[in-house]
Amino acid sequence: MLGARCLLRALRSCSSAPCPRHTPSAKLSVRDALGAQNTSGERVKVQGWIRSVRSQKEVLFLHINDGSSLESLQVVADSSFDSKELAFGSSVEVQGQLVKSPSKRQNVELKAEKIEVVGNCDAKAFPFKYKERHPLEYLRQYPHLRCRTNVLGSILRVRSEATAAIHSFFKPSSKVKVPEENFFNVPAFLTVSGQLHLEVMSGAFTQVFTFGPTFRAENSQSRRHLAEFYMVEAEISFVESLQDLMQVMERLFKTATMLVLSNCPEDVELCHRFIAPGQKDRLEHMLKNNFLIISYTEAVEILKQASQNFTFTPEWGVDLHTEHEKFLVKHCGNIPVFVVNYPLALKPFYMRDNEDGPQHTVAAVDLLVPGVGELFGGSLREERYHFLEQRLARSGLTEAYQWYLDLRRFGSVPHGGFGMGFERYLQCILGIDNIKDVIPFPRFTHSCLL
Amino acid sequence: MLGARCLLRALRSCSSAPCPRHTPSAKLSVRDALGAQNTSGERVKVQGWIRSVRSQKEVLFLHINDGSSLESLQVVADSSFDSKELAFGSSVEVQGQLVKSPSKRQNVELKAEKIEVVGNCDAKAFPFKYKERHPLEYLRQYPHLRCRTNVLGSILRVRSEATAAIHSFFKPSSKVKVPEENFFNVPAFLTVSGQLHLEVMSGAFTQVFTFGPTFRAENSQSRRHLAEFYMVEAEISFVESLQDLMQVMERLFKTATMLVLSNCPEDVELCHRFIAPGQKDRLEHMLKNNFLIISYTEAVEILKQASQNFTFTPEWGVDLHTEHEKFLVKHCGNIPVFVVNYPLALKPFYMRDNEDGPQHTVAAVDLLVPGVGELFGGSLREERYHFLEQRLARSGLTEAYQWYLDLRRFGSVPHGGFGMGFERYLQCILGIDNIKDVIPFPRFTHSCLL
Repeated sequence: MLGARCLLRALRSCSSAPCPRHTPSAKLSVRDALGAQNTSGERVKVQGWIRSVRSQKEVLFLHINDGSSLESLQVVADSSFDSKELAFGSSVEVQGQLVKSPSKRQNVELKAEKIEVVGNCDAKAFPFKYKERHPLEYLRQYPHLRCRTNVLGSILRVRSEATAAIHSFFKPSSKVKVPEENFFNVPAFLTVSGQLHLEVMSGAFTQVFTFGPTFRAENSQSRRHLAEFYMVEAEISFVESLQDLMQVMERLFKTATMLVLSNCPEDVELCHRFIAPGQKDRLEHMLKNNFLIISYTEAVEILKQASQNFTFTPEWGVDLHTEHEKFLVKHCGNIPVFVVNYPLALKPFYMRDNEDGPQHTVAAVDLLVPGVGELFGGSLREERYHFLEQRLARSGLTEAYQWYLDLRRFGSVPHGGFGMGFERYLQCILGIDNIKDVIPFPRFTHSCLL
Repeated sequence: MLGARCLLRALRSCSSAPCPRHTPSAKLSVRDALGAQNTSGERVKVQGWIRSVRSQKEVLFLHINDGSSLESLQVVADSSFDSKELAFGSSVEVQGQLVKSPSKRQNVELKAEKIEVVGNCDAKAFPFKYKERHPLEYLRQYPHLRCRTNVLGSILRVRSEATAAIHSFFKPSSKVKVPEENFFNVPAFLTVSGQLHLEVMSGAFTQVFTFGPTFRAENSQSRRHLAEFYMVEAEISFVESLQDLMQVMERLFKTATMLVLSNCPEDVELCHRFIAPGQKDRLEHMLKNNFLIISYTEAVEILKQASQNFTFTPEWGVDLHTEHEKFLVKHCGNIPVFVVNYPLALKPFYMRDNEDGPQHTVAAVDLLVPGVGELFGGSLREERYHFLEQRLARSGLTEAYQWYLDLRRFGSVPHGGFGMGFERYLQCILGIDNIKDVIPFPRFTHSCLL
C-alpha cells in the first residue's frame, strides 16, 4: 500500500503536462509556410534540409525543403549568418518572420532571425552535388539517400497520393461525399495477400480488397519486374460477366489517376517535363478514351497478320509475350485494351470455364497499357462445384483444396476479381521507364541493397 | 492494313457498351436497403446469404445478410415461395418492393416478388448450425467459413474501420476537414516495413508511416503472438523528446478508437455485449483518462515492493515479463501507462543514449494497456554520429551498417518513432482474448491452416 502511494507521486499524465518548448514560434511545414495566408510578419519556425545556398554581399539566400512539397521555402538572412556549416544537404532550424516576397518567383519568404544547424553534411563525401541533375541510374546506387533529391521526392509523394487514392476508391471515408456510382459502399477489407483468401472473404462480404507487398521469385532483370512489389487485389461477389469486372478496373485506373493529378500536380509535372516528355498527352489520351476490348483469339489474329517480325511467333494456345503486348497496344492507338477469354490450358484451375469450343477458353482478362504492357490481370472464378472438382482432380489438387471446394458447397455465388501491380501503375501514369525508380527500396534478382 | 481494319470492327469500347441486365431493379446492399429513406414500394434487388428462415402458414420470413452490416434484411414472401433450397447458408437473389415494416424490430422489409437460389448450402455438412452460437475456439477450426458468422463479421468490419482510421490519422484526405492539431499534414508514406527503412525516409520527409504485414518466427503459442501480424510504424523527424512521441501514440490510439466507435457502433457493441462484458466501461476509462508515464526504474521499484509473488523476480537490468506488465497496468488503475528509459544493455544499438548514470539508460518507451500488455514500442534514435559509430563497433556491425551511419553524416536530425501491433490494438478495444480471432487467417507456430 505504501508502495502504491509512493508510486502515485511518480506517475505523471502525458497530455496534461506542459511541454517545455524552447520557443513560442509556431512550427510550420514548408508546404504550410508556402501556402500561408498571413504574411504580415508572423513568427514561425521551419525545419528541413538545405537545397541551395546563395551568398550575396549583404544577403544570404537559403532554400529549405522538408519533403512536404516539391517547392522549397526561400530563407533570407543577413550575411552575418553566413557560415561554412550552412551547406547543401545540412539540416537546419530557422526561426523568423513570414513575409510577402518581393520576387515573382515565390509568394512568401522567411526573414531569418535565428538559424541553427541541426546536422552537418559532409559535402565532399555526399554523393549528390549541388545544382547537378543526377540520372536515375546514378541515384539508384544510393537507396538510403536518393529520397533527398527532387525527382525521387516527387515520385514518392505521387506514390503516397496514389496509395491514398486507391484506398479511397475502394472504401470512401464516411466523411467524404460518396462518389456518384457508389460501387464500393460496403466494407472493404485489408487482409493477407492472395486471391484465394479474398475468395474466402467474398463468401461473406460482397466486395473485398487487399493492398500490400507481394513476393515473386522471378529470375528477371527486366525494367518491369521486382522480387517484391505492391499489389492491389479486389474480389467481387454476384458479378455476372467479365464486363462487370472490366468496368471496375477502368474506373479504378481513371479515378485514382484523376485524384493523383489533382492532389499533386507539381510532382506529376516534374516527371512529365523532365523524365518522360510527351507523357502528359499520352496519359490524357488514356483518360479521355473508353478502354477497348478484344478477345485473345482476335489478338492472335491481329498478331498473325502484322507485318512486324516477332521473336516469338504468335500462335493460338501460346501466351502473349511482351513484344506482342506492345504491338497490340500500339495497334489500338495507344488506348488501354482488355484482352479477354484465354485458352483454358494456359490458365490456372480456378478460372471460369466458358464451355465454348472447339477452342476451349476461360473467362480471364488482362489489361494492356502503353509503355508497361500488362497492368491488370483478372478472371471470373469457377463457382460451380462439379466444374471445379473436375479441374482440381485433373491437376491432382483435390485433397489440398478441399477447403476451396467447400466455398462452392456452402452458398456459392458467381464472383470474380483482379490484381493490379502498383509499381507498374506508377510507371504508367508518370512515364518512368524503370520499375526500380518508383519504389523506395527495390529488391530484385541478386540485389537487395537495403 | 487490312488486318487493322478488320480489327477495328472487332474492337469494342468498355464503358459505352450497354450492359445486358436481366432486370431494371436497382441493386442495393443490405446496409443501404436497411437505411433506405424511400419505402413506398421501390423495386429493388438484394443479394446475400440466408441467415434465418421462418415458415408460417401463409408467410415465409427470411433474413438476408451480405456482410455490409451486422443487421440482416427481413424478406417477407408468400408461402408459395417456400422450398427446401431456401435454407440457412444458401445464397439468394431477391427482387421485390422495399416497404415500411409493421414490426418494431426493423424499419424496413423487402416484400419478395422473385427469389432465386444462387448457391445451395449442404446443411448437414455445413459446420455452423442454425440459431446456435458457436464458441470462438470452434469457429477457429474453419478459417475459410468463419467470416460468415455474426461475430467474425463484426470483428472484421471493425478491423476494416480501424485500418481506415489509422490511415486517416496519418494522412488526412485532402477532402476531409483537417483535424484540429493537424500533426500529420505532410506526406506520409506506405513503404516496406521496417524502422531502419523508415529512418531513411525520415531523412527527407518529416513524418512517415507504414502499415502492413510483419513476420516473426516467434515460437510462441500465446494468445497475443502470431507469426504474421500487421504493424503500424511511424517515424518523426525533429522530435525533441520522448514526450513528443508519446503524444502521437496517445492521440493515435484515442483518435482511431473514437472513429471506430462512431463508424461501427453495432459491431463494437456485439463484441462488448457477448464476448467481453464490461469491456465498454474499461475502454471508456482508457479514453477519458490521460495516459500515465513511469520510468523503467520506477516500474522495477513498484514490482519489487509488490506483495504479489512473481514467477520471474523483478530486477533492474532485466526485461519486464507479461506478469510484470499486467501488474503495472492494474497498479495504474487500468489506465494505459508509458514505461520509459530502459537499460541500455537491454536495447538495440539504434536507441538514443540518455548519457545518465550510474544506471545507463536509453530513450526507449513501451505503452502497456489493460488486457494486452505491450501495445506500442518506440524510442528516440541515436542521431549523433560518434555515439552510433561506437555502439555499432561494439556489436561488430560497423561494416554492415555503413549506410545507416551515412544518414548521420549527411544532415542528421533528431528523430524517433514507434510501432503498434494492429491485432493487439483490436484485442484491446474489443476485449477479444485470443489474437487469432482478430485476423482473417491466423498463422502461428506449427499452424498455417490457410
